[in-house]
Amino acid sequence: LLGTSSESTGTPLAPFGDRLAARVAERRSQIVLGIDPDPAALWPAAGALGHAHGVAAAVREHCTELIDAVAPACVAAKLQLACFERLGPDGWHVLHDVAATARAAGLLVIADGKRGDIAVSAAAYAEALFGGAPTPYGTTAGLGADAITVNPLMGRDSVAPFIAAARAAGAGVLLLVRTSNPGAVDVQDAPLSGGGTVSERLAAIADELGRDGVGDSGLSDVGAVVGATVPEQLQRLRALMPSAPLLLPGVGAQGGRIEDLAAAFSPGHAGGLVTASRSIVGAHGQSGAAPGDAALAEAERLRTAAWALV
Amino acid sequence: LLGTSSESTGTPLAPFGDRLAARVAERRSQIVLGIDPDPAALWPAAGALGHAHGVAAAVREHCTELIDAVAPACVAAKLQLACFERLGPDGWHVLHDVAATARAAGLLVIADGKRGDIAVSAAAYAEALFGGAPTPYGTTAGLGADAITVNPLMGRDSVAPFIAAARAAGAGVLLLVRTSNPGAVDVQDAPLSGGGTVSERLAAIADELGRDGVGDSGLSDVGAVVGATVPEQLQRLRALMPSAPLLLPGVGAQGGRIEDLAAAFSPGHAGGLVTASRSIVGAHGQSGAAPGDAALAEAERLRTAAWALV
Repeated sequence: LLGTSSESTGTPLAPFGDRLAARVAERRSQIVLGIDPDPAALWPAAGALGHAHGVAAAVREHCTELIDAVAPACVAAKLQLACFERLGPDGWHVLHDVAATARAAGLLVIADGKRGDIAVSAAAYAEALFGGAPTPYGTTAGLGADAITVNPLMGRDSVAPFIAAARAAGAGVLLLVRTSNPGAVDVQDAPLSGGGTVSERLAAIADELGRDGVGDSGLSDVGAVVGATVPEQLQRLRALMPSAPLLLPGVGAQGGRIEDLAAAFSPGHAGGLVTASRSIVGAHGQSGAAPGDAALAEAERLRTAAWALV
Repeated sequence: LLGTSSESTGTPLAPFGDRLAARVAERRSQIVLGIDPDPAALWPAAGALGHAHGVAAAVREHCTELIDAVAPACVAAKLQLACFERLGPDGWHVLHDVAATARAAGLLVIADGKRGDIAVSAAAYAEALFGGAPTPYGTTAGLGADAITVNPLMGRDSVAPFIAAARAAGAGVLLLVRTSNPGAVDVQDAPLSGGGTVSERLAAIADELGRDGVGDSGLSDVGAVVGATVPEQLQRLRALMPSAPLLLPGVGAQGGRIEDLAAAFSPGHAGGLVTASRSIVGAHGQSGAAPGDAALAEAERLRTAAWALV
């Protein structure tokens, strides 16, 4: 029932919302380990490897160490695709390896690529990120992600192919609804003449497209990204998307505070996923402890704080 | 002066707008060959290769044949990143190879990935698509794109790192302003309470961020994607972005007609780039000619029709 979307068991996978809820309950964690490796700030052992074997090997080792250290406190790993692509053409090999490592550590894999394109291209992206593409020359290797982030600027027909592919794989889609960056005011916060903001329109689209994907848990396979930096919007957006799992970036370095996120958890513990990257991987810079120990301690601190909110 | 962004000549590159204008004049073409290979519809020789060597090799061969056949009629190749990523982890290797082939054929390379993310991730995407990333373990291989498409939903601070990286490389950024798909009405056409639409706000952002990048040609290094399917919007959006090179998808299969695109070319021949994919690569399906001959004939037809508009 909790198998990942890349397994072929022959039995249909449970809907994403139910898989997520079960995994959150099992691991007693709503913390998502954000993996966005910066080659200039790798942990020491990985850095040493890099001087001998190059940056791709170093990043792979760094991510493995990070996952090994922190996985016990987390429910998922969020892989920032930009950071793998900047490694050059080998980057997607490293990405696949790190996804496999995260999966083996019991984590759901969230591919954070913020893709968005018209129908046929959207379907191609979905094949790359979920189960691969069937071709006359064999099926290609998909990333096997459990969920992906998608940019809905292009509208419903650009999002639908992602949702169809996710649903077939027991996976989920997280639409950008209100991001955590200051520039989100430029477009997402713009008020519409019919009332509400662009973000509220995006939330309505997420809710509409997710209605057929609500599982027994009450959670849908269409969720949303809502910045932890705007708790006042979180409440309004949650009301527009009562069944959406919400991915909540912006805690820590960007100023968001876990204690302001209670609205996300109205559908239960799995209603919100708190993602943290720099505050975990760089925790040793503050504490002086070994990187893995400091990272785990910070993830455990976040886990306890979030779990207490429901 | 016309060198691509991936060359290291030691002399600063001309701004993208000037490079584009010179290349369009030199090649007497505003046609962009859209390369979005469908493994189920490769040209015959490539397909035969696929049965022996797999889908990645087949797609590489198909793209090479396509470029060799059509390049004489075109000014640029637009690589749809989704179609390379669906090949699995080797996809980015094929992508790099095809970009090199296009460059060698005298084409500008447009990486159509529609990326968009917050500052540090945006910078990582830009490194992947332009000149690579400097790391303590060597500089990674960038794609060397001359221009990229970017999704501006997340706002100005998400777009700025792409523009900074492009400008440093003599390359350009094409913001999604009004896409060609029917779903564009959902968000991009939404009217704002202060007047105008979301697309018009995006156009204003493109114009603002592009002002410092206008070259002697009058063209900026910040352009826009505007669907050829909405000529009535094209006129209004051109007025808001007088210096932006406009990438115009949607001619052919999606219903757009070249003769409706005159507004794009108000800054001159290089003001508009007409991109066509399926109508070129699949032209032999209609004519019965050899794939390469039919593709070239269709590209030449488009070239003549577009050139006549200025």
